[in-house]
Amino acid sequence: MAGRLQFWFEFASTYSFLSAMRIEEAATARGITVEWQPFLLGPIFAAQGWTTSPFNLYPAKGRYMWRDMERLCISRGLQFHPPDPFPQNGLKAARLALVARDAGAAAAFVRSVYVSEFCLGQDISDSAVLAQCWAEAGLSPDLMTRATAPAIKTALFEQTAKAQALDLFGAPSFVAGGELFWGDDRLDEALNWAASI
Amino acid sequence: MAGRLQFWFEFASTYSFLSAMRIEEAATARGITVEWQPFLLGPIFAAQGWTTSPFNLYPAKGRYMWRDMERLCISRGLQFHPPDPFPQNGLKAARLALVARDAGAAAAFVRSVYVSEFCLGQDISDSAVLAQCWAEAGLSPDLMTRATAPAIKTALFEQTAKAQALDLFGAPSFVAGGELFWGDDRLDEALNWAASI
Repeated sequence: MAGRLQFWFEFASTYSFLSAMRIEEAATARGITVEWQPFLLGPIFAAQGWTTSPFNLYPAKGRYMWRDMERLCISRGLQFHPPDPFPQNGLKAARLALVARDAGAAAAFVRSVYVSEFCLGQDISDSAVLAQCWAEAGLSPDLMTRATAPAIKTALFEQTAKAQALDLFGAPSFVAGGELFWGDDRLDEALNWAASI
Repeated sequence: MAGRLQFWFEFASTYSFLSAMRIEEAATARGITVEWQPFLLGPIFAAQGWTTSPFNLYPAKGRYMWRDMERLCISRGLQFHPPDPFPQNGLKAARLALVARDAGAAAAFVRSVYVSEFCLGQDISDSAVLAQCWAEAGLSPDLMTRATAPAIKTALFEQTAKAQALDLFGAPSFVAGGELFWGDDRLDEALNWAASI
């Protein structure tokens, strides 16, 4: 039986972008199915007293992260344009990702949002930007309105509660067979684990 | 000309242990010289309001780190025995590392301390443990007393000030040609960078 890997991502997260751009191809090569799991880090950070990204709270760590991202994007052939402001508000995008997942287009939509945000430096809280991503993922425009339905709002709340129950503390995170892996640096280990169970 | 790579390590740091165990061999294979740079994270953490390791301050991150270390040690064939208490007080060990470096035995002594701390779970603030590490590194017992000389105390203070000037915020960190790389996960990238300049 092919393994499954949960991919927990947050749209504001720079390293989630890196994983989103390569996870589907890497998983497919190992016969693993990716479960796209949007969630919000805000409530998790708030619970430990953080009001913004740790990359803003800790400036040296922030300066390092931006340079690290530049280097990694060069090595992976990705254009990189940091969004302003950072972090972006990914609430609408995360709700849309749940609708896109129901429509079988999670990977395409999520990647399109990340490209807009981190390759083009666009504002992903802007509905026009999201509509463009929606179209690029081949999704029908009338499906977009579902993102504001109470059921989707509740579903995103439950995603974040599930992330907390899984003891997630950052993004990207990967879960397979009860094992948690954190960070784009652990994607290969997570895939190996998923393949082994 | 062969490149040089600064290896900034803190004895309390779990991931510094992982890098210390493999950096010399990996660097030698690329013709790179390792500069062993002990420093203390305490003052750097204190400057941002932290009174202990972030792995203690943020329990979910701490739980993850211990499991991650277990998995990595298994994959690298390293015995793993977390020290108690964590973090260990590495002040004496860091001063001794400077003396050992002057004597040309930094790598051997530093690895011996890390093995005592993280493979055997010993207390590295214990002078008897450090004397054992000193002997294992082939260093003369009478050299040990130099670690309490004012010049060495000053030298360690200056190491930590230099780390802050380099914008370091954690360990292990690697510096080559003005580029900073953070974390055992970036050792290969740091070596590649050092080899390219």
